[in-house]
Amino acid sequence: MIRVVLVEPEGEYNVGFIARLCKNFSVNELYIVNPKVNISDAIRFSAGGKDILINAKIVSSFDEAVADVDIKIATSSIADNKGDILRKSIKPWEVIPLIQDKKTALIFGRESVGLTREEIFKSDFLLHIPANPEYPVLNLSHAVGIVLYEIWKYRYITSSLSSQSMSN
Amino acid sequence: MIRVVLVEPEGEYNVGFIARLCKNFSVNELYIVNPKVNISDAIRFSAGGKDILINAKIVSSFDEAVADVDIKIATSSIADNKGDILRKSIKPWEVIPLIQDKKTALIFGRESVGLTREEIFKSDFLLHIPANPEYPVLNLSHAVGIVLYEIWKYRYITSSLSSQSMSN
Ligand SMILES: Nc1ncnc2c1ncn2[C@@H]1O[C@H](CSCC[C@H](N)C(=O)O)[C@@H](O)[C@H]1O
Ligand SMILES: Nc1ncnc2c1ncn2[C@@H]1O[C@H](CSCC[C@H](N)C(=O)O)[C@@H](O)[C@H]1O
Ligand SMILES: Nc1ncnc2c1ncn2[C@@H]1O[C@H](CSCC[C@H](N)C(=O)O)[C@@H](O)[C@H]1O
Repeated sequence: MIRVVLVEPEGEYNVGFIARLCKNFSVNELYIVNPKVNISDAIRFSAGGKDILINAKIVSSFDEAVADVDIKIATSSIADNKGDILRKSIKPWEVIPLIQDKKTALIFGRESVGLTREEIFKSDFLLHIPANPEYPVLNLSHAVGIVLYEIWKYRYITSSLSSQSMSN
Repeated sequence: MIRVVLVEPEGEYNVGFIARLCKNFSVNELYIVNPKVNISDAIRFSAGGKDILINAKIVSSFDEAVADVDIKIATSSIADNKGDILRKSIKPWEVIPLIQDKKTALIFGRESVGLTREEIFKSDFLLHIPANPEYPVLNLSHAVGIVLYEIWKYRYITSSLSSQSMSN
């Protein structure tokens, strides 16, 4: 079970695109903490994800968004802050074994400042998508898309393998 | 060498976000065929990819965009058009061995109608990102992000492995 948690998102296009990605990759739940946008302004970017956006759970705190999950995966555009390692980061493909059969929150931060130290500290793992070291800061919705794709890909490959072996 | 080719893109946010993704994943060239947007309207979505957008090559035909590449990879939101199989599709991770040491065009279609049959026919392979069978149609820029991420990931993993073996 996957829940995408957006913490204080600022761009209506990002919120709408993320609802679309949730539909594209069969995410079970979308939670938005204290959005800085009007959800109605995000709808025009949601395409086939409109129902997911309309049914997104709007909460007022980070704690409410993650209270009932088994594992919390925070995300960051910074690979390794040598001066201040709060959490050693993992890669997207390394998250797969950690989330099997677990109610999982994938937590994404504000376009302006990402997640706070406290929000990262409250999480279990910190995920960093490797990218150009000169510019590893992805747009919020594109970071979401890549993480959801990696998780979907694993489901896709394992279900193809089991249907092949069942037909043999 | 990777060239991203956008065929008649319609959304300025998509064009801007794609320039950003090209910077995030060190794409060498961005070509835009007959854009339906003003590049100046796309700039505010390009963030650190602004230079890539400003230097994007604007051409008036598909043929111009791909004339000098070794391999052309078209993309489609349709996995398998059973009534009309023009090309059997490959998955993103399957493209990796095909593009090694090749000047590669990754070709993405119009938000409204994708690529034409002719454009797909002129290409060498057709790539489909597996997603929810009920809604596999990704937003254009998110499709680009996922393909560039897969290609980057391969470079990332192989360069980590060679720096490990060199230090042994
Ligand atoms: N390379 C990357 N890996 C993982 N998540 C990333 C990422 N790039 C962006 N994101 C996600 O996108 C969000 C907005 S980008 C935030 C950038 C901000 N200037 C900062 O200082 O953090 C991040 O909080 C994270 O959730
Ligand atoms: N939350 C989820 N939503 C949809 N499919 C899921 C899923 N979790 C696991 N799966 C499995 O993952 C597979 C991915 S889609 C499979 C595509 C199809 N077999 C083809 O080749 O075209 C589904 O068949 C489904 O069995
Ligand atoms: N699942 C997927 N796999 C590969 N490319 C995809 C994709 N979803 C969207 N795209 C890319 O995003 C572009 C815009 S989506 C185009 C949708 C259009 N209604 C159609 O009929 O094709 C596509 O041309 C393709 O380049």
